[in-house]
Amino acid sequence: MNLDQVYAKLQEPSDKTICLLVLDGVGDIAVEANGWKTPLEAARTPNLDALAKRSALGRLTPVAPGITPGSGPGHLGLFGYDPLEFEVGRGVIEALGLGMDLKHGDVCARANFCTLDGKGIVTDRRAGRVATEITEEQCALLGSKIKKIGDTQVIIKAGKGHRFVVVFRGKGLEGPLTDTDPGHEGMAIATAKPAGNTAGQKKVAKLIAEFYKLALPILKGRKPANGFLMRGIAHQPAIPTFDERYALKAACVAIYPMYKGLAQLVGMTKIEGAHDIKEEFDLAIKAKSDFNYVFVHYKPTDAYGEDGNFPAKVKAIEELDAALPMLLAAKFDVLAITGDHSTPCPVKGHSWHPQPVLIHSAISGSDGLERLTEKCANSGSLGIMEAKYLIRHMQANAKMFAKFGA
Amino acid sequence: MNLDQVYAKLQEPSDKTICLLVLDGVGDIAVEANGWKTPLEAARTPNLDALAKRSALGRLTPVAPGITPGSGPGHLGLFGYDPLEFEVGRGVIEALGLGMDLKHGDVCARANFCTLDGKGIVTDRRAGRVATEITEEQCALLGSKIKKIGDTQVIIKAGKGHRFVVVFRGKGLEGPLTDTDPGHEGMAIATAKPAGNTAGQKKVAKLIAEFYKLALPILKGRKPANGFLMRGIAHQPAIPTFDERYALKAACVAIYPMYKGLAQLVGMTKIEGAHDIKEEFDLAIKAKSDFNYVFVHYKPTDAYGEDGNFPAKVKAIEELDAALPMLLAAKFDVLAITGDHSTPCPVKGHSWHPQPVLIHSAISGSDGLERLTEKCANSGSLGIMEAKYLIRHMQANAKMFAKFGA
Repeated sequence: MNLDQVYAKLQEPSDKTICLLVLDGVGDIAVEANGWKTPLEAARTPNLDALAKRSALGRLTPVAPGITPGSGPGHLGLFGYDPLEFEVGRGVIEALGLGMDLKHGDVCARANFCTLDGKGIVTDRRAGRVATEITEEQCALLGSKIKKIGDTQVIIKAGKGHRFVVVFRGKGLEGPLTDTDPGHEGMAIATAKPAGNTAGQKKVAKLIAEFYKLALPILKGRKPANGFLMRGIAHQPAIPTFDERYALKAACVAIYPMYKGLAQLVGMTKIEGAHDIKEEFDLAIKAKSDFNYVFVHYKPTDAYGEDGNFPAKVKAIEELDAALPMLLAAKFDVLAITGDHSTPCPVKGHSWHPQPVLIHSAISGSDGLERLTEKCANSGSLGIMEAKYLIRHMQANAKMFAKFGA
Repeated sequence: MNLDQVYAKLQEPSDKTICLLVLDGVGDIAVEANGWKTPLEAARTPNLDALAKRSALGRLTPVAPGITPGSGPGHLGLFGYDPLEFEVGRGVIEALGLGMDLKHGDVCARANFCTLDGKGIVTDRRAGRVATEITEEQCALLGSKIKKIGDTQVIIKAGKGHRFVVVFRGKGLEGPLTDTDPGHEGMAIATAKPAGNTAGQKKVAKLIAEFYKLALPILKGRKPANGFLMRGIAHQPAIPTFDERYALKAACVAIYPMYKGLAQLVGMTKIEGAHDIKEEFDLAIKAKSDFNYVFVHYKPTDAYGEDGNFPAKVKAIEELDAALPMLLAAKFDVLAITGDHSTPCPVKGHSWHPQPVLIHSAISGSDGLERLTEKCANSGSLGIMEAKYLIRHMQANAKMFAKFGA
């Protein structure tokens, strides 16, 4: 019996409510340029501080030591799905990011317009980074002319700049396939090849070849975006839902499409309409009557980390803290606050540094630590653990597990 | 895909330089007899202290909880090779310790002279611990008379006291085999038997039987060392080199042969000529222009731990600290300082207690801890992790890993 099976066997229904509040990329590192302080340390957070004093703390390794996760693996880990076991392809993540409602088995590809010369050689892999409006116009044109290939539906959606997404929806489709992006200018568009040798992958290879045959003539003469490249061609994997795996009816409150998409991937119901954290908390509190697990996603901490903007990241944390009493007043039985990974300002991107985490419930206990900071969390009772175990701690705090053995 | 495969897939070339400084056996335990202080705590180490304040700290479990490693597994772990997966036989370690240049497939045995009575019964398993000179003389004699058995080369090298090493070099040889040491006086020399049932092991069993047939008559009449026993009969395993595994060109600076040998086992280039830590640092700094990973080994901390000499171990740490600015001035991009295991003075030997570790780079961050001591390291952001992950953290700090997933 593997550990997931043990958890499943011990799992019992519960009337408790659970909330996971994710401050995207909140973890950071202390460096001299920032006065040896992390944003969590520099921020004034009276509400988080008071909560931290009454909570169990620790840090989460998103995937494995030294591995920096994308948003997909970062969130899957927090949702309790081992990111090494449940891999989600880049095409799928991109489609989720554009707010597309995917179905199991959909094959998705990241695509972008490029420039071809008269002989079909790629002369600019990004078509001069054409404006979003041109991409939207050309995607609409392609979409109006190519709706189906055989029994397979083709869905094309424009993204930002030269980027778009192509989704193939039909029977017996499977990824992954190799990119059609040759990786360098001066080469022809590559053929998408099955990464394995399955019938589903072969079917998709044929579909993509046919898609090029239909689409390139439509784009002919358009300058500079007269061709396109496809990458990260993958199908949406079959993932056991939150309900199946944890016996939890789960809702997601997020503003950005990608996080809603990742939550939907594991069967959460997305609750829409929020434009800021207060509205998010408001929706989360309302969801409490229909759901026993609510995931709330807060984006600004990550965005400012990516920018390397330390003062703005500090301010984003303070704004979250100011809104927090609203969520606390709703008294979820179990509340966890953490990030999906660190986005340290000095790195200006995601990193492997474990993110701090806090769990509060009537039986979480208190580690007697003053604040939810990286340094305090190092001494917490949760230790430095893989993110995939967070849900198990939350379930335990919700008294969802029977005793193991007598 | 296992985790090593994931790391391999994410690995990217880097122009950063990495240094691993190993203070052999530096970890220790605080006991009343030493004023509840460990040597690292008792030592005056202004340079290590200053570095620790700007670094990430933690502790390394050499193999697994409660397991005390020898020098082989201790170093393999630091080099990122799981000591449970990559086992190196004692015969191989012993040969490396004598500075022998081994080749893949060499079968090595620890041997020692013993005393036999007229009927071939072992009456003293250590031949009265004969002097090194006698062992040297008798090994030279055996070596001059037995150079080959069939197509296999036989290499005999004297060690200290009654100990020596026998290496068989040829085609299709494989270990391990059982010891010829019966374990007690009053018994005959045992037969070396294949531990498995492979053709290579069977070939070595025949070679060893033949070796005894040739060697015992040569030793006949010699008192008290007229026989010998063999233990730890093993072949040098095929281990992927540092370059293959980590895309790192690695060098080793050590004074004692065993550590050079262990480094060579994983494909490091040994750089010789140092007699003390200053000369070692000097060579390490020079190596920086040709190598992007340099391992520096410092022995005295272990030697004094083995002696149970607390003041001398404190002094060895202080001497290392005094030399440290030289290494720091060379500005390796990533520097890790740790032990290969603990050698606590109260234990007078290796132990399982996790050794403290420090990683310093531009993006290591600081845990705000005052010193590189066991107690401080307990509160570090690296947590208490298996030693095999150290290299992954060092690679991450050198920006050698692409993001996992989107």
